[in-house]
Amino acid sequence: MPERIPIEKKVLSENDRLAGELREKLKSRGIVSLNLVSSPGSGKTSLLEKTICALGDEIEMAMVAGDVQTENDANRLIAAGAKMARPIVTGGACHLDASMITRALRELDLDNLKLLFIENVGNLVCPSSYDLGEDMKVVLVSVTEGDDKPQKYPGMFRKSSVMVINKIDLLEHCDFDLDMVKANALWINGRLKIFDISCRTGEGLGSWFDWLRGLTAGK
Amino acid sequence: MPERIPIEKKVLSENDRLAGELREKLKSRGIVSLNLVSSPGSGKTSLLEKTICALGDEIEMAMVAGDVQTENDANRLIAAGAKMARPIVTGGACHLDASMITRALRELDLDNLKLLFIENVGNLVCPSSYDLGEDMKVVLVSVTEGDDKPQKYPGMFRKSSVMVINKIDLLEHCDFDLDMVKANALWINGRLKIFDISCRTGEGLGSWFDWLRGLTAGK
Repeated sequence: MPERIPIEKKVLSENDRLAGELREKLKSRGIVSLNLVSSPGSGKTSLLEKTICALGDEIEMAMVAGDVQTENDANRLIAAGAKMARPIVTGGACHLDASMITRALRELDLDNLKLLFIENVGNLVCPSSYDLGEDMKVVLVSVTEGDDKPQKYPGMFRKSSVMVINKIDLLEHCDFDLDMVKANALWINGRLKIFDISCRTGEGLGSWFDWLRGLTAGK
Repeated sequence: MPERIPIEKKVLSENDRLAGELREKLKSRGIVSLNLVSSPGSGKTSLLEKTICALGDEIEMAMVAGDVQTENDANRLIAAGAKMARPIVTGGACHLDASMITRALRELDLDNLKLLFIENVGNLVCPSSYDLGEDMKVVLVSVTEGDDKPQKYPGMFRKSSVMVINKIDLLEHCDFDLDMVKANALWINGRLKIFDISCRTGEGLGSWFDWLRGLTAGK
C-alpha cells in the first residue's frame, strides 16, 4: 500500500506545524506542558487526581483528557478538585493530535497557568507519532502489565523524557522485575528520568510532586 | 484532512477482501480461528501458554503472535510447548492486518490443524478495525486495568464475541467491580460470552478449556 505513505507524511507534517505553534504559545506564557501516555489502565488519571489533591492550591494547573469515548476521565479530574479540566472525545481516533489540543486550549484560561497536563488516549503505539507541542512526554507503565513493555513498544520510550512506574504496591503479587524494566528502558533511552510510585498507597509520589515543583518554579 | 478517508476506506476494503479469502480457506479446512485482542499486558500470551500446556496434546493448534517489536511472545509460546508458533513483527504498525496473517499462514502446516490463535498487537483501539478472517475476536481485560474499559473502548467490545477477565487473583487488591464491568460490556454487546480467569492461579481456566474443546469437537 505505497500510496498511504505520502498522505501520512502530509498529515504528520501538518500536525508538526500546529504542534510548533502550540509549543511557542505555551513557552511564551511560561507554561510547562506534559503529555501523559500509557496503555489503557496504567493510572494516568489516578496520577493526575493525586497531583491535583497535593498541588492544586500551590501550582496553577490545567488538564485536557483524551478518550476514544466518554468524558469519564475529565469528570474524575473535576471531582478531584481540578479548576480546569476539559475532555477531548476522539470518537474512534487512537491518539490525540495537535489540532485537538489547539481547540481545547481555546476553552481554557491560560492567564497565570503554570502547568498543563495532556492525558493522551490509552495506547502505547500511535500517540508516539503525534507531537502535541508538549515540553515532555511522560510514559507510565504499571507493574501489572509485565516488565517487557519498553522492548515491545520502544518508540514510546525513546520519545519520552520521563517514565513513571505505577502500582508498585502490587509488586509482591506480580512477576515484575523492577530493575530489569529500568535497565531495558534506559538501554532504549538513557536520558529517561524514572519515578517508582503507587497511586493507591501514595508511595513515591513525594518525589513526583517535588519534581513538578522544580519544573514550574520561577515560571 | 478529508483526503485521508478514501485511502483508509481503500486499505480497509482490500483488507476485507483478503480477510474473506482467509476465512474461506480456514473454514474449508475446518480450522477454528480466534483473534485475541487487549491492552498491552492483559495476559494474551499467558492465556495461550496455559492453553498449550492443558490442550497441546489434545487439540492440534497453531499460533501467530503479533508485536510492534521483538519476537518475545512467539518465543514464550514455543518455550511453553507450542508445536507451531510464528511471530509477526509489525515494525511500528499498531495492529495486525489480513495480509500479515496470509503471509504467516504460508509458513504453517495447516493439515490436521483444528485451532488457530492470532495474538494481536496490544492495543484496544486500532485492531478493532481490521478483520483477520477469524471466526471470533476474544477481548481480554485485566482486573488491574480498571472496570471502565468497555465504555471507553466500545468498538472493541462490540466486535468481540468473547470477553476474558484475567488476573482475578488480584481482585482484593484493586478497585475493580466485576459485576459492573460485565453489565457494562453486556450493555454494549449482549451476546458476549464471558470468562473470569487467573492465568497465575489457574482459577476459571477449566471453563475456558472446555469451551475450546466444544468449539473444535467434531472438526
